[in-house]
Amino acid sequence: MLKLYYSPGACALASHIALEEAGAEYEIQAVNLRVGEQKTPEYLAINPAGSTPALMTDRGPLTQNLVIMGYVAQTYPDARLAATDDSFEFGRMQAFNGYLASSVHPAMGALLFAGLEGEAKETALKTTLGKLDLLETRLLQGPWAMGESYTVADGYLCVFTRWARQAHVLEPSRFPRLNDHLDRVQARPAVQRVFAAEGIEAA
Amino acid sequence: MLKLYYSPGACALASHIALEEAGAEYEIQAVNLRVGEQKTPEYLAINPAGSTPALMTDRGPLTQNLVIMGYVAQTYPDARLAATDDSFEFGRMQAFNGYLASSVHPAMGALLFAGLEGEAKETALKTTLGKLDLLETRLLQGPWAMGESYTVADGYLCVFTRWARQAHVLEPSRFPRLNDHLDRVQARPAVQRVFAAEGIEAA
Repeated sequence: MLKLYYSPGACALASHIALEEAGAEYEIQAVNLRVGEQKTPEYLAINPAGSTPALMTDRGPLTQNLVIMGYVAQTYPDARLAATDDSFEFGRMQAFNGYLASSVHPAMGALLFAGLEGEAKETALKTTLGKLDLLETRLLQGPWAMGESYTVADGYLCVFTRWARQAHVLEPSRFPRLNDHLDRVQARPAVQRVFAAEGIEAA
Repeated sequence: MLKLYYSPGACALASHIALEEAGAEYEIQAVNLRVGEQKTPEYLAINPAGSTPALMTDRGPLTQNLVIMGYVAQTYPDARLAATDDSFEFGRMQAFNGYLASSVHPAMGALLFAGLEGEAKETALKTTLGKLDLLETRLLQGPWAMGESYTVADGYLCVFTRWARQAHVLEPSRFPRLNDHLDRVQARPAVQRVFAAEGIEAA
């Protein structure tokens, strides 16, 4: 059976939501990032990069949200979580997910989890708001991330908008579309089941 | 016709190599990062994130190396540049590419292009060497990145090992496998044609 290694509320939430939306059979295994469980020899044997998420399959592990979400969408095509039969549309979605992975996540990580103070924190805030602006005004197609249909990208986007709202940087007047999107993702039954399983709250 | 927006020697080199290895018909258009051409309204209409590479297709633009390389491999399956008929193997390759995109590239960008000095530069060097160690000892399967067959991941890896060798941080005694890999990628005729087209040298 599939087994997802995650940390509650951390970015693996995106892969967790994808599995639940797909109707997959899977187990979850918490990895406590606060005590460094992602750096134990046991976990490094699964993911040498020492990060979550990892998804153990019967052929071995896959790592990174973008990869796991793409794999889940392709493995459960009936759930229609991506345009799995169209390389161009699939690529568009993965570019959106790649922007979250390579650009939004590092910026928010620096702002929220790096212990910055003073000017460095101001700079990190400005960088984060700029990336959220781009999502708000250009990248979020609406009503869902990629347009008319819900995809795995929506679950990934909500990881970061949820953090942003918790940190009071998702101001409704500046980010009305991102706030509306977050509300609609969090209202989905599959997402609520995932929040309950991770023991976390909607933002 | 496909049109690749790139900057000579920058990370778009990976997508350029993929197109050439695929035997695709394509044009190239240089974007001068030094004078900020990636932030002009014309270019932002192609890629709102203001980064290279972007690949214009007859259906619109695709962005990011991982996405463009995946699209090229899927669009030219006869070139066998990825396991395009196997979601798990394809995912393994994209996880490797994602590690380069989200982890190696930011680390090397900080070391080489952020103008750091003193302790901050030492920290960036240590971070970069740690990521190169992981590639050397765990992630590079050998002889090619993903094992027995050349894939688009090899062209992507050579972007960063080429930078590392130019910056004198790819010490042969510490990184024998990465050095050997870089030499073999640079010896490929398609890669040599791409270097000539970008006006850059092998490292």
